[in-house]
Amino acid sequence: MERTDNEAPAPLKPGRGRRRAEDVRRATLAAAAELLLSEGVRSVTFSKVAAHAGVSKMTVYKWWPSPGGLAFDAYFSAFEETLAFPDTGDIRRDLTTQLHTFVDLLRRRGNVVAEIIGTAQSDPDLAAALSTHYVRQRRKLAVERLTLAQQAGQIREDVDIETIVDQLWGACYHRLLLPAQPLTTEFVDQLIANLFESIAPRS
Amino acid sequence: MERTDNEAPAPLKPGRGRRRAEDVRRATLAAAAELLLSEGVRSVTFSKVAAHAGVSKMTVYKWWPSPGGLAFDAYFSAFEETLAFPDTGDIRRDLTTQLHTFVDLLRRRGNVVAEIIGTAQSDPDLAAALSTHYVRQRRKLAVERLTLAQQAGQIREDVDIETIVDQLWGACYHRLLLPAQPLTTEFVDQLIANLFESIAPRS
Repeated sequence: MERTDNEAPAPLKPGRGRRRAEDVRRATLAAAAELLLSEGVRSVTFSKVAAHAGVSKMTVYKWWPSPGGLAFDAYFSAFEETLAFPDTGDIRRDLTTQLHTFVDLLRRRGNVVAEIIGTAQSDPDLAAALSTHYVRQRRKLAVERLTLAQQAGQIREDVDIETIVDQLWGACYHRLLLPAQPLTTEFVDQLIANLFESIAPRS
Repeated sequence: MERTDNEAPAPLKPGRGRRRAEDVRRATLAAAAELLLSEGVRSVTFSKVAAHAGVSKMTVYKWWPSPGGLAFDAYFSAFEETLAFPDTGDIRRDLTTQLHTFVDLLRRRGNVVAEIIGTAQSDPDLAAALSTHYVRQRRKLAVERLTLAQQAGQIREDVDIETIVDQLWGACYHRLLLPAQPLTTEFVDQLIANLFESIAPRS
């Protein structure tokens, strides 16, 4: 992302087409993510992001409903690739891969993730933005992968897929936000084993 | 709890014995819980609690390491009875009972619970107090009941009990703190079913 200091960015012209708009969007998201991850969610304001991205404030206003919406779109984009769901055809293996990566991210970035979630708890607008722009988007991706596994006969038909999301990723967030036990890859393996193997003895 | 306004409480005298000390402790916890649940975790200060409980500030200082420690001891005490673990000898039934109550509590008191957890995320002292005075205490009770079930052969011997805690109560906290799906008793039943019945088809 290039920026020239002390120089206002050229305003977007309609004729310059989709490609340029996509670049601006990406630069804006990158700047917002950088602010979010380095200075926390309160630092993501339209003015600051516009200045950091070298885009007009008007553009940012036009594209995002609120600074929170922008912050969480940026948060989603920043980790979209890292947290992608593999599909090797083996759901247990794919969940293990994805959740090991997720826990690794929480271990590295846990402070900022906890700060983001924590701040949203006492700010209804931020909470709504977090839910709409991040939580529901991430859940959707998990549900899609789990639904494929259900269709492939690897998860029973009568199991509620949404509940599995809370018992895997939600269980990890629990150890992050209400810490008492370590967030390890062994923990992830146990989470998956408990769901796939049943905690009750075979009768 | 009785209080006479505009009158300083009689100072504790060593000779007055354990009973009086226990009364003072209870009055202090009740006052702290009331402040916590009505005005939020930041409102729990030694001065305020002492004034509300009608006890000397010195006593509060002596017994609690920090306002956060007091707040979370009070939080624990306030819900200890409501969240007690039944033991009918049937773990699945007992988990269902306890978790229905827990979810009911989160539905009624969710805002303040979320505020407490949220505030702790950006305050290391408060986070440590929450972990020591609340989270570890609640986990201990859950682990005790689950361990009895494991000893009774209702949970497989090789299952890590701590992980189950995250997949039941942690999954509920997930729906509270990162909302996207409803916190219902049906959700609780599904959480329990997923663990006891295995989400994989019987082979």
